Amino acid sequence: MDGYLSFAAPDPTILCMSAFDLLLVSCDVLTRDGNAYRVAPDCDIAISGNRIVEVLPTGQIDPGQAKSTVNAQDMFAIPGLINTHTHAAMVLFRGLAEDIPIESWFNDYIWPLESNEEPEDIYWGTLLAIAEMIQSGVTTFADHYFFCDEIAQAISETGIRAHIGWAVFGHEGLTKLDQTVDFARRWQGGAGGRITTWMAPHSPYLCDVDFLRETAARAKALGTGIHIHCSETHEQVTYSLEQHGVTPPGMLHRAGVFDVPVLLAHGIGLTPADIALLKDHDVAISQCPKTYMKLAMGTAPVRDLRAAGIPVGIGTDGVVSSNTLDVLEQMRLLALDQKQAAKDSTVLPIQEVLDIAFAGGAAALRSPDLGEIAPGKLADVVLLRTDGAHFFPRYDLLANLVYSARASDVDTVICDGKVLMQGRQLLTIDLPRVKAEVAARMQRLNQRATERRLATYPVPQK
Amino acid sequence: MDGYLSFAAPDPTILCMSAFDLLLVSCDVLTRDGNAYRVAPDCDIAISGNRIVEVLPTGQIDPGQAKSTVNAQDMFAIPGLINTHTHAAMVLFRGLAEDIPIESWFNDYIWPLESNEEPEDIYWGTLLAIAEMIQSGVTTFADHYFFCDEIAQAISETGIRAHIGWAVFGHEGLTKLDQTVDFARRWQGGAGGRITTWMAPHSPYLCDVDFLRETAARAKALGTGIHIHCSETHEQVTYSLEQHGVTPPGMLHRAGVFDVPVLLAHGIGLTPADIALLKDHDVAISQCPKTYMKLAMGTAPVRDLRAAGIPVGIGTDGVVSSNTLDVLEQMRLLALDQKQAAKDSTVLPIQEVLDIAFAGGAAALRSPDLGEIAPGKLADVVLLRTDGAHFFPRYDLLANLVYSARASDVDTVICDGKVLMQGRQLLTIDLPRVKAEVAARMQRLNQRATERRLATYPVPQK
Repeated sequence: MDGYLSFAAPDPTILCMSAFDLLLVSCDVLTRDGNAYRVAPDCDIAISGNRIVEVLPTGQIDPGQAKSTVNAQDMFAIPGLINTHTHAAMVLFRGLAEDIPIESWFNDYIWPLESNEEPEDIYWGTLLAIAEMIQSGVTTFADHYFFCDEIAQAISETGIRAHIGWAVFGHEGLTKLDQTVDFARRWQGGAGGRITTWMAPHSPYLCDVDFLRETAARAKALGTGIHIHCSETHEQVTYSLEQHGVTPPGMLHRAGVFDVPVLLAHGIGLTPADIALLKDHDVAISQCPKTYMKLAMGTAPVRDLRAAGIPVGIGTDGVVSSNTLDVLEQMRLLALDQKQAAKDSTVLPIQEVLDIAFAGGAAALRSPDLGEIAPGKLADVVLLRTDGAHFFPRYDLLANLVYSARASDVDTVICDGKVLMQGRQLLTIDLPRVKAEVAARMQRLNQRATERRLATYPVPQK
Repeated sequence: MDGYLSFAAPDPTILCMSAFDLLLVSCDVLTRDGNAYRVAPDCDIAISGNRIVEVLPTGQIDPGQAKSTVNAQDMFAIPGLINTHTHAAMVLFRGLAEDIPIESWFNDYIWPLESNEEPEDIYWGTLLAIAEMIQSGVTTFADHYFFCDEIAQAISETGIRAHIGWAVFGHEGLTKLDQTVDFARRWQGGAGGRITTWMAPHSPYLCDVDFLRETAARAKALGTGIHIHCSETHEQVTYSLEQHGVTPPGMLHRAGVFDVPVLLAHGIGLTPADIALLKDHDVAISQCPKTYMKLAMGTAPVRDLRAAGIPVGIGTDGVVSSNTLDVLEQMRLLALDQKQAAKDSTVLPIQEVLDIAFAGGAAALRSPDLGEIAPGKLADVVLLRTDGAHFFPRYDLLANLVYSARASDVDTVICDGKVLMQGRQLLTIDLPRVKAEVAARMQRLNQRATERRLATYPVPQK
């Protein structure tokens, strides 16, 4: 008014906020409006502690309020990717079991190889897997494996989020089962809340009804869910009908497994009656299509599952079948395999693929605070570079995300409010050290002693 | 002998060679011994002019003889990837035609969009595509598109190798056909031998027998091959039988197309009788599985084609169907889709995938000097980084190449003896300029005027 003010007055459109810890400045943001995924251009994301507190158009948040900022110009912010089923430390065996039938894959390779594993191997293998997952934009993974204290230790140190279940076979007996219960109790809510524990009986074909019943009772008492393989192939369904007179989900139901929340991996052989059964219980499904294609296992009834309201998320499975821990690749393969199997290119359009990856992943892990960039959600955010030739033109960022993006486009990864990677530099893992430790173990791990394999994969009578 | 020599005597194992231009030092090399692909560890590759002259264990070639050297330690040298079928400049429309049926894809999207294209668009679009291909390790591509002088210009400037055919529809008539002949004559052997020209009638469903006969006569007179789409879906076969009483290959045969070398794209609907016909002629097939899965077109009889001795190579197709120009991705998808379709995980093992990508690609383009790192071959070499977490452990580099490698692992690309990319820096393309030119065209190009579409995709009577 008086003409003497030589400095700018505060912009009234800038919100007055309490200070926050991290501000991601000027990115396009993948947002969700009901079931519709949209791109909000040129926004800032404010994070306090481990939560997202604001997502607003750039200019509306005062960057001076942030303890630190990340320049996210030209980046596309997506929720941290959720890997709903893996066996992370199997990276130790990457490339050792290629182009073989599933029976041989289990009996001649996987279980003989895994019989060599010692706890410290799992620690280093899990670190290698976490490095690959962070580099691929994964901020949460559901692990189903052995020596889970070492896994939990690796989670604690690296800042990623995980749902861990200690895999157990029926023949290992109740003493072993109770050791996995002890693990679940010991680490539930561990690593500052980043660890959730599950019970993890291997499968209906390697755990009998009594063992499954004992597992379900313990899960119920403990308040955990059950993460289990089920109906991975049509042959497994035939085997179950031969042996038990019911399908694998029928066997789980008989054992009371569906009395607790269940994360069911694969489900390729699910029947319409199985789906009707699952929809009446608290069951979610993980889909790992690269494994299904590579081992020629068939294609799961994903449309029917979603039509029945059953949550479906994306997983990578272990790398001895899928070779990578790349959720973006699995998203794309899910769409491609489902379209091809249905002979219908309109099946699983981009919006549905995104819904499976994000809302589906969160629902599969019973973690409603994941899978969305919105105030109040956990601060798991990935910044993707969009300046690659393969990402241009940017007519449709969502199409580019599903069909063109590569894991290597991931630039920055934030999990639970902490920056785990920036400019593709891992900040919580010494990858050269991890690789050296894994390399030192390769010769011992790469021995296949079939006679001392962990378990035997049963095949149906022909 | 006399004890006075204080300097090292020349090592007799070091070969005396004439000077050469480029030495790639200390890489693992993908080599071929008959049909067997192997890794030769820790070798040097010597290049003179546009040819590989030596591949020997490190230490046997005197680096002092090289005008320049590339430190390739920890890198995996593979032959430059061969993209046997694409429409490169369609990158202009990336992401504009998603999740739709093939009829709508052609009639409502592709041909209405392409009616907007002007020659200079093709120049910039092709440059963008070449940038993506070089970054993905592609050194040769077979293009089937319009305004080919602009394509040839882009090839000339960027140093990549290409086989170019000017796409023509039957309804455009013989005058247009003769213009494509003029192009083929004008650019045959152009860009220092890096350009090979073909005739490129679109397809049997959009070129009648008379037009195809005229094309074949011109190709024969000119000494070129014919690059054509054929039997892309089972519906196209039905349509051909309805309209012409023969399958699409039967129609090509009737028109004399098989009197010249033919590169036949897709071939999903090929029948056993078609395969018997093709094997008696000089025909090769390009496979672009990402398109087939995305548009739910089915799976080509690749095993039967190879059993019949018909060369099969990998292509990317255009990015409006496949979204990327990534041959590594297409290799992987070929294996995965073929295994899934055959319900047999032993189908297309790693050795066969490599044979399709390299020997098959070279055979498809009738270029026996491509696809192999060996003395006398053209110096098209790609160095892949192998230090990524996703590439470790390195028990089996070939498994990692087929199932774990990403385009972003490509570090250095050499084509025709020239370095086109090093440390992922493009040396012959100003990518920011190219993107700015493409961006300036997006609003005009992104108009769909269905009434002036280039052609109409016919559908069989139901």
